[in-house]
Amino acid sequence: MDQIRIGIVGYGNLGRGVEYALRQNPDMALVGVFTRRPPSSLTLQTPGVPVYPLDALDGMEGAVDVLLLCGGSAADLPEQSPRYAGRFHLVDSFDTHANIPAHFAAVDAAARAGGKTAIISAGWDPGLFSLVRALAAAVLPCGESYTFWGRGVSQGHSDAVRRIPGVRDARQYTIPVPAALDAVRSGANPALTTRQKHMRECFVVAEEGADRARIEQAIITMPHYFADYDTTVHFLSEEELLRDHGGLPHGGFVFRGGRTGRQEQNRALVEFKLTLDSNPEFTACVLTAFARAAFRLGRAGQAGCKTVFDIPPAALSPLSPEELRRQLL
Amino acid sequence: MDQIRIGIVGYGNLGRGVEYALRQNPDMALVGVFTRRPPSSLTLQTPGVPVYPLDALDGMEGAVDVLLLCGGSAADLPEQSPRYAGRFHLVDSFDTHANIPAHFAAVDAAARAGGKTAIISAGWDPGLFSLVRALAAAVLPCGESYTFWGRGVSQGHSDAVRRIPGVRDARQYTIPVPAALDAVRSGANPALTTRQKHMRECFVVAEEGADRARIEQAIITMPHYFADYDTTVHFLSEEELLRDHGGLPHGGFVFRGGRTGRQEQNRALVEFKLTLDSNPEFTACVLTAFARAAFRLGRAGQAGCKTVFDIPPAALSPLSPEELRRQLL
Repeated sequence: MDQIRIGIVGYGNLGRGVEYALRQNPDMALVGVFTRRPPSSLTLQTPGVPVYPLDALDGMEGAVDVLLLCGGSAADLPEQSPRYAGRFHLVDSFDTHANIPAHFAAVDAAARAGGKTAIISAGWDPGLFSLVRALAAAVLPCGESYTFWGRGVSQGHSDAVRRIPGVRDARQYTIPVPAALDAVRSGANPALTTRQKHMRECFVVAEEGADRARIEQAIITMPHYFADYDTTVHFLSEEELLRDHGGLPHGGFVFRGGRTGRQEQNRALVEFKLTLDSNPEFTACVLTAFARAAFRLGRAGQAGCKTVFDIPPAALSPLSPEELRRQLL
Repeated sequence: MDQIRIGIVGYGNLGRGVEYALRQNPDMALVGVFTRRPPSSLTLQTPGVPVYPLDALDGMEGAVDVLLLCGGSAADLPEQSPRYAGRFHLVDSFDTHANIPAHFAAVDAAARAGGKTAIISAGWDPGLFSLVRALAAAVLPCGESYTFWGRGVSQGHSDAVRRIPGVRDARQYTIPVPAALDAVRSGANPALTTRQKHMRECFVVAEEGADRARIEQAIITMPHYFADYDTTVHFLSEEELLRDHGGLPHGGFVFRGGRTGRQEQNRALVEFKLTLDSNPEFTACVLTAFARAAFRLGRAGQAGCKTVFDIPPAALSPLSPEELRRQLL
């Protein structure tokens, strides 16, 4: 079988995660990493794969089947996905929820014009969680859905703490409130405030001589980021931070609590849970599976922008339809 | 919007569950229940909906968009699904795993010949669980999958106990072994025997004067059904059985424990869990959502037999693609 030829755009945590994921998928081959940094500054883990400057993508339409865009949603993807969607099948993990309709429209126009298939927002949230939310709501129309995130490191909240004067480094964990999880699991379909759903825990390395009480106050009263949550702040040494909080674990839960029966007297609870040692590596695994789908839909002439809602699960799997029915149905 | 016109074939627990589910889905309308019993012996919960003898389906091709087949997998569906697949879009919950390839082939031939869309095995297992198994294995190719069933009533095992001389009535619960769930959740990807995964609990009403020790022995040594499991037997009165074990709860878990990263050193765990007060009512909810998909794929000319692997999640949802992206992505 011919391998699907993959190009990675961006070689941060996510791009490296895709490189690792491709090793686990023998039907795909990495043909190059494309970067805005000097190519010679990057050392790949895959022998023989070249690093190109981003510009080199122009003219490589015949050498790459699917581009996996591994940049950020703030600046990279809004520019890159529409730019490349007309020339390559592509997958991104665009995750700025409010801007998804505009991103979809821009990518869709480019992909249709070029006759290519693009899949956006194909991580775990948005992505797998979205899929479960749609599936569970379709099956249980009478009910309530809940999404919880964590326990995991939030990069945005960690950055917000780092910007406080006197903070040298910081890590912020988002944590579902156990009582909220229990209430949802009971089938009671509770109404939950922001504060009742999640709490936040910060591990902070202070500059020498910094006023810790002031830093703590600045954190727990910070609007949008912390003021609406119960937040705990721990101070620790730089060594402790690196030793105990060096990873990027994450995860979360999607619940749908529904009612069935003649008088809607019976409960039905759907729970989908992810527990991830490495958030970017798992996101990369999702992107990689959707690369297979982008290639197949593209080959079938289904041009335009798609999301997880548009992809038949079989398109993600290396198994044939017959194998899927025999082994997994 | 024109409603999707639904016909229910078979009016047992599952058929009644579909009737209740249709009330929660305003884009669908029940146009008739079709039964092998004398139609006058059935009392529907939906005013004004007629009950027809099964033969009345011949000639109703213009009045029914999608048939939901609510009979059993042993005798009903192998005969009915191929028979009607050429004339109606249809959905069934065929669940005899070993016979799925043959059932698929028979339904596919009929559906293609008639230009109709059939979706088979669209319950929760096979069905939603199959979908999660395929999805999780595609995302985490390096890993192990586990399916656990219960705590819930197994009809087949309950029937097996009832066939023992001296047993008046019985209910059997299949129960995941808590230590096995813990081991899987730890990310250790353990090898588990049949006995290590599930245990069985039987509630038995004995005939007066029956030898309870003999009944208990007959249960726990029964090949295939109980001999490979740790089984607990409780004797109780008929009143107690009806009072405490009158429902049909069920549920279960699908896990995928995978590895990510440069040296596959990081764990990623997917857990999907269902907790259902009523097994047939939830299965009916799944069938009903897939009726929407069968109608839409049928309208789009996608003739033939499909399974959950072939259905884009958007096809299950009453929301438009724009609503899905805005609200659930």
